[in-house]
Amino acid sequence: MKFSLIKTDSSSKARLGRLFVHNEEILTPVFMPVGTQGSVKTMTKEELKDIGYKLILSNAYHVYLKPGIEIIQKAGGLHSFMNWDMGLLTDSGGYQIFSLKSLQKVTKEGVYFSSHIDGSKHFISPEISMKIQEAIGADIIMALDECPASSCEYEMAKASLKITLHWAERCRQVHNDEKNTLFGIIQGSLYKDLREKSVEALVEIGFGGYAIGGLSVGEAKNDMYEVLNYTTPIIPENKPRYLMGVGTPEDILEAVERGIDMFDCIMPTRIARNGTIYTGSGRISIKNAEFTQDFLPLDPECDCYTCRNYSRAYLRHLFNVGEILALRLNTYHNLYFIYKLMENIQKAIKEDRFSEFKTDFFKKYFSNTI
Amino acid sequence: MKFSLIKTDSSSKARLGRLFVHNEEILTPVFMPVGTQGSVKTMTKEELKDIGYKLILSNAYHVYLKPGIEIIQKAGGLHSFMNWDMGLLTDSGGYQIFSLKSLQKVTKEGVYFSSHIDGSKHFISPEISMKIQEAIGADIIMALDECPASSCEYEMAKASLKITLHWAERCRQVHNDEKNTLFGIIQGSLYKDLREKSVEALVEIGFGGYAIGGLSVGEAKNDMYEVLNYTTPIIPENKPRYLMGVGTPEDILEAVERGIDMFDCIMPTRIARNGTIYTGSGRISIKNAEFTQDFLPLDPECDCYTCRNYSRAYLRHLFNVGEILALRLNTYHNLYFIYKLMENIQKAIKEDRFSEFKTDFFKKYFSNTI
Repeated sequence: MKFSLIKTDSSSKARLGRLFVHNEEILTPVFMPVGTQGSVKTMTKEELKDIGYKLILSNAYHVYLKPGIEIIQKAGGLHSFMNWDMGLLTDSGGYQIFSLKSLQKVTKEGVYFSSHIDGSKHFISPEISMKIQEAIGADIIMALDECPASSCEYEMAKASLKITLHWAERCRQVHNDEKNTLFGIIQGSLYKDLREKSVEALVEIGFGGYAIGGLSVGEAKNDMYEVLNYTTPIIPENKPRYLMGVGTPEDILEAVERGIDMFDCIMPTRIARNGTIYTGSGRISIKNAEFTQDFLPLDPECDCYTCRNYSRAYLRHLFNVGEILALRLNTYHNLYFIYKLMENIQKAIKEDRFSEFKTDFFKKYFSNTI
Repeated sequence: MKFSLIKTDSSSKARLGRLFVHNEEILTPVFMPVGTQGSVKTMTKEELKDIGYKLILSNAYHVYLKPGIEIIQKAGGLHSFMNWDMGLLTDSGGYQIFSLKSLQKVTKEGVYFSSHIDGSKHFISPEISMKIQEAIGADIIMALDECPASSCEYEMAKASLKITLHWAERCRQVHNDEKNTLFGIIQGSLYKDLREKSVEALVEIGFGGYAIGGLSVGEAKNDMYEVLNYTTPIIPENKPRYLMGVGTPEDILEAVERGIDMFDCIMPTRIARNGTIYTGSGRISIKNAEFTQDFLPLDPECDCYTCRNYSRAYLRHLFNVGEILALRLNTYHNLYFIYKLMENIQKAIKEDRFSEFKTDFFKKYFSNTI
């Protein structure tokens, strides 16, 4: 992976950049769809490419448990297993271990956890995490981190950060730079001095990119924005900044404004499967009775496959009778919506009118005039 | 709809024919995928067309209940509602009424039933069935029939046939030939004289095609073949013969050999969603542990999208972790398998070697050598 900064918006910290990953050129800010178990839910790789996605995320924790690393290795890596010939990033599994109630015990050495599937016992150290992610063979991999709750007390956050930084150093030591790019993860909960210390220590270790972890985990929106306010400015300008697990269109815009380059989130795909649809004029639920005889597309201004071909009435019918096609078509639309949002963000930064774009987007998005 | 007979196999009753439906030329024997609720489960119309399908079936009973005829009419018909610009056939709903335990009462006038969804009460007469199917706007529609159990006693089958023939006559009387083509349905359970009487009476009324109903409903295979043995020869040669609800590759071959031109069945799509896959060497269950590290395609001789792109190991993983993509890829493969089977059948008849083809197919299909 290579990263170069193209332009910074003059009225905000929004950045236009370029990633080279897996022989693909990818403009940033970029959103990565999530393929938790080796599949972006309901979608084929062709559909992802048709939309424009060239970089997706997969979860090392899930892939490690199922189908297991042995199979992935025999397949020649996850790219080959899922037949995805573009950019791939894996998280370390830390977040899943701490959020799926799998956690058993954290020591300086590593983390003991039980599988959320069958309760089997596992141990992952920074070294093992690197081995797993190298076997998976993603283009960008993440250091193992501890991800404390957002409501975490200062002393606990401090102790947790100490472990995360120790693990980051060990990941860096065993990481093979020729195989892929390792990102460090900034932790420190909502405490400014801890976040600053985290950035400082990680930069000293030296990573190919810097992720901000431990956000979008239940804290207030403004708390998240505040962390970004003081964190992104001290991350080296020439490295990509990745806000993990974010997010909604509004959070993406707020974070881009604060200098974030990369995003991932299950939101667009998950809400699609629950019948919730992004439109330029706000979110709608396709289940609603108001769409029973509405023959407009989901978003009249969208030119995605779903909107070019099907009406709200048809999509509502499919969803309400449980047809899988509904989940596919909704997912396609939501991923397309986010892709176009990122494209428009890139264009706005290029033309030095990001703040104006953001204001206009919000005005319409929160109007609920669909 | 128009039908023309191209050729009859010299060593069997297998026929090669041509249907013109919705401006499309379709060779017979043809298999119609089933889009029960206005969607061939998991598939887009583009995927159906990519495989080669130009004629699908939808169930009037299901569409009538959900989304309801009013919406379909406002959408401009089911073609338009589901954005399917090729051939469409609807069954009358009779089979569903009798098989989904919805039945309340059958009189000479029509059938009283309650919705399997919400228990609401409904009445359908031959005239109402024609109105519903005309509103749905399929290219080929079916007369309303009573579908007795396969184990039905002679007197009951006889009485039931009397109603079916009375309804067929009323359907014919109110049917508008300019809008679409009406098929009659041959009933009579497993009784030769009743089947013969049924054909005779329907032919006298005169239909655009003749379906054989009341088979593949639990009777022994040989009983079904026997009914075909004496039924197809007395159906007018210049009309298409449609065996409803069939079937498996083996049943399709047996029925083609006995002169059947059209088929529909949920089997290939339903078993795909349960992980069962057709291959030239027999059916396999992709769930099986033997495929855990098997990186061959589902069927090494298949060149469908699924087989060109994904391994058994990946498909097994997707299926076992509940990914919707597995259901899509399995469905695509099974529908492709059946399409290719029909193509090969057509070719074999054309080259006057149908019996040889059937023997060779069975030899391999029942070898279970995958």
